[in-house]
Amino acid sequence: MPSMSLFSFAALVSFAALILPRVFAAGVADVDSLTYVWPLPAEFSYGNGTLSVNPGLSLVAEGGGGGSGTIKDAFDRYYKIVFQHNDAFSILNAFGRRSKTAGFDINKLRVIVHSKDEGLQLGVDESYSLSVPTKDGNSIAGEAVIEANTVYGALRGLETFSQLCTFDFGTKTVLVRKAPWYIKDKPRFAYRGLLLDTSRHYQPIEVIKHIIDSMSFAKLNVLHWHIIDEQSFPLEVPTYPKLWQGAYSRWERYTVEDAYEIVNFAKSRGIHVMAEVDVPGHAESWGKGYPQLWPSSSCREPLDVSNNFTFDLISGMLSDMRKIFPFELFHLGGDEVNTDCWTFTPRVHRWLQSHNMTGKDAYTSFVLKAQQIAISKGWTPVNWEETFNNFPEKLDRRTVVHNWLGPGVCPKVVNSGLRCIFSNQGVWYLDHLDVPWDKVYTAEPLEGITDPSKQKLMLGGEVCMWGETADPSNVLQTIWPRAAAAAERLWSKWESIPTANLNKTVLPRLHYFRCLLNTRGVQAAPVTNAIARSQPQGPGSCYYQ
Amino acid sequence: MPSMSLFSFAALVSFAALILPRVFAAGVADVDSLTYVWPLPAEFSYGNGTLSVNPGLSLVAEGGGGGSGTIKDAFDRYYKIVFQHNDAFSILNAFGRRSKTAGFDINKLRVIVHSKDEGLQLGVDESYSLSVPTKDGNSIAGEAVIEANTVYGALRGLETFSQLCTFDFGTKTVLVRKAPWYIKDKPRFAYRGLLLDTSRHYQPIEVIKHIIDSMSFAKLNVLHWHIIDEQSFPLEVPTYPKLWQGAYSRWERYTVEDAYEIVNFAKSRGIHVMAEVDVPGHAESWGKGYPQLWPSSSCREPLDVSNNFTFDLISGMLSDMRKIFPFELFHLGGDEVNTDCWTFTPRVHRWLQSHNMTGKDAYTSFVLKAQQIAISKGWTPVNWEETFNNFPEKLDRRTVVHNWLGPGVCPKVVNSGLRCIFSNQGVWYLDHLDVPWDKVYTAEPLEGITDPSKQKLMLGGEVCMWGETADPSNVLQTIWPRAAAAAERLWSKWESIPTANLNKTVLPRLHYFRCLLNTRGVQAAPVTNAIARSQPQGPGSCYYQ
Repeated sequence: MPSMSLFSFAALVSFAALILPRVFAAGVADVDSLTYVWPLPAEFSYGNGTLSVNPGLSLVAEGGGGGSGTIKDAFDRYYKIVFQHNDAFSILNAFGRRSKTAGFDINKLRVIVHSKDEGLQLGVDESYSLSVPTKDGNSIAGEAVIEANTVYGALRGLETFSQLCTFDFGTKTVLVRKAPWYIKDKPRFAYRGLLLDTSRHYQPIEVIKHIIDSMSFAKLNVLHWHIIDEQSFPLEVPTYPKLWQGAYSRWERYTVEDAYEIVNFAKSRGIHVMAEVDVPGHAESWGKGYPQLWPSSSCREPLDVSNNFTFDLISGMLSDMRKIFPFELFHLGGDEVNTDCWTFTPRVHRWLQSHNMTGKDAYTSFVLKAQQIAISKGWTPVNWEETFNNFPEKLDRRTVVHNWLGPGVCPKVVNSGLRCIFSNQGVWYLDHLDVPWDKVYTAEPLEGITDPSKQKLMLGGEVCMWGETADPSNVLQTIWPRAAAAAERLWSKWESIPTANLNKTVLPRLHYFRCLLNTRGVQAAPVTNAIARSQPQGPGSCYYQ
Repeated sequence: MPSMSLFSFAALVSFAALILPRVFAAGVADVDSLTYVWPLPAEFSYGNGTLSVNPGLSLVAEGGGGGSGTIKDAFDRYYKIVFQHNDAFSILNAFGRRSKTAGFDINKLRVIVHSKDEGLQLGVDESYSLSVPTKDGNSIAGEAVIEANTVYGALRGLETFSQLCTFDFGTKTVLVRKAPWYIKDKPRFAYRGLLLDTSRHYQPIEVIKHIIDSMSFAKLNVLHWHIIDEQSFPLEVPTYPKLWQGAYSRWERYTVEDAYEIVNFAKSRGIHVMAEVDVPGHAESWGKGYPQLWPSSSCREPLDVSNNFTFDLISGMLSDMRKIFPFELFHLGGDEVNTDCWTFTPRVHRWLQSHNMTGKDAYTSFVLKAQQIAISKGWTPVNWEETFNNFPEKLDRRTVVHNWLGPGVCPKVVNSGLRCIFSNQGVWYLDHLDVPWDKVYTAEPLEGITDPSKQKLMLGGEVCMWGETADPSNVLQTIWPRAAAAAERLWSKWESIPTANLNKTVLPRLHYFRCLLNTRGVQAAPVTNAIARSQPQGPGSCYYQ
């Protein structure tokens, strides 16, 4: 009966498909040598106990900063995450059950914040300790404790605590396994960024907030908001109210209030917002409202270097933006400047000649003038690496250089005494969809920098979500899970990050974190797709796709 | 200078790219003949006035059902949507501005609900009227009014009101344009469904809630929850506690409390949850916990027809589910049954012989037994069309037949006196990614049914989001915007739905609705992609991509 044996074979294949993944998935949490907290804390120890967490978990806030609304709000957010499987419904009675109301091991979360200063500067203390002790002998624990110098350290501790809590479907209880836990944690780099481009596609406020929330889950702490580019100018600038006529439409815009709301929303998650105004290139959309910014109506980029109005406008714009963006770093772009429009437009060409400048001289001059404008407003300028590659000595000594073109740039930058942010496009540009997770994971900002005094000049790194093909429908699934790979690199101790056997030492943890993002409503894509953000190839568990 | 003219040409192309979309986008709302409410209300009139809406908008609830928490909660949700551009921040002062606090046209939203009965039956009255009058003469309006017989009608009215409100970036005010509005609205079909498959990929509770919320924006009203299939069994069944051992992993599960929460969440949006238990095929995962359900360990589907345990288990399972799912329709599947496993497994084969049954007889018998079990629990059975195609006369007369294989089935079903749901896979299967929006839009459930008494047997239709390649990362962008095309077909009057020139009469409205979903945080994909849910092909506005 050939059809019979064929059928049996199909059934066997089906059997394997049904069973094997489950074994693997179970294995995810059974690998005791792995710790399912992402990113991995700097120092930690654990035991082999299991503690239950009271659904009536209460917050006990202490210390000079304990009374902060930031802590209370964060506790409420994390409470909803940890207790998303609510058991307080009348349905319980229908099945003859009762909610457990007593006998839990962890009834309080004590959060001690020493400082009441909630200033969010670059390098703000994000360290924390977290202990989840077991009761032993005459211990009266019954609580977990987070201790931090600042509210921002406490926020990181709350995230870690939330990841230790897992819902057990058998007992319908939130459990902390492998207790007791003692964690002392702090980030390796002060700057752990994600670039969001809202010019190639407009991202609504709701989407930006969702992205910020998701960043906090991976302990990323800088939203680099690439607000404006040549395609559209969505931001309101009160002093130059025609600028946002460069938006795609009357609806694809941000008011200053919107921007301010985003900054405050981010701050409540311990996330800086670094705004970018990319000059003099990447600025064609500016001239929709003010055509005098274009060298000519047919040649529109870079911004007209010969016209004082250009710099008056930049100054007025930065004055407006200074009221919205308190973060000390401000990005002035400076990348991909093609000066042909200057040298080919007769009026600008004459101006160059009269100032005895080449196009490159004028580019240098433009960048330096913009730097001084930003500095005069109290900002530290950040520029893309072309500025450093072209005129390293002329950049203001406060400049932070932002790498993107390739490897090996930051070593030169820090050797010259400037600070650097690592975003090598070959590994950390999220719009490069063919870069697999492990290539993102193994990229090392300190590569080629051995001198500890130079290492200090590395602020950190940033993954970049350029928006040409990322709109509100797919931006989150393009960011995640690969941004998480960079986030661990930037947070965790270098010595803790495995360098070999990544499919066993890291991949199960990243699958797990991707699924955690999914349960929190973040559209993180399958981890091991050959092309990022592509669909799962067939039915299966989140824990191995 | 050839490079010069080349550059100019490039600049011109760039100019066109920059300007044309904006003109088009502006045109979206300038086409006065189009009404940007989705789905289109049954009857409406409008004027040419503009009314401002007070950010202090208050709810005035009246009528027997006015005091409902459902209304209050919905008002709060829609308030957040309508006023998402908050202007109450201190940033206003920094720019020398003040919030407008008086002089608004609409200060109150009066919601009158006549009945306090919040029962959510199939065919519940979803009608409402909405008036947004202008002040004229001695009018003292200052309010918009929604009037409905049930809270569910009022919910639909709130959605419509929210779509009339647009944020004007110039005045930073929420406006209702083209006032006064007078709308009388009700759905064309009582059943407007979306199937969600949580077996091929597990969808976390957060994601399911997000989907339910998004359904309410398009006035869809049935979540057909295809909970279980051959790949995984995520649902807890207290009477047979080993069933959810068939889940992909210990975490990819739903407790009965989770399911109940989803039902209640849906109810608060006026959405029914129709659960499905797809028997006897599509049930391999059941046997992970109870292998006796398999004909043999190597031949696992359909469920063993020869074993009383199979029917005892189905009965116990449906008793449990009856406590969770109050909706009167319950889906029993019945599709794609290959009876080889019965006829090839010696034990089952002997049973067939002793009962003088062919495989097909046993399939018929299984479906009918399952129907009687469901009916005995007080449910109306729904079955996929194969049951009707194979034994139309034997089906219980209460059966609702669910079309999927192709066109022309529902006419036969209603002619035989049974009720029908339209889901022709060629047009309304959302996992068919090559079906363009207009093909979804023009599909007509009543096609081939002219007799009004037969038309009444058409409950409506449903778009199906099968989960083989849809997981939490991409399910929303696969559902939207195409589900909206079906939603308008199912809600709006047949006479109002354009049949020609769709790119002018409908497409701008669908673009607009897709962007509206985006601003509400729903990952609706570009409308006109050749392959649904694929990325936008380059930078651009939401309003034409």
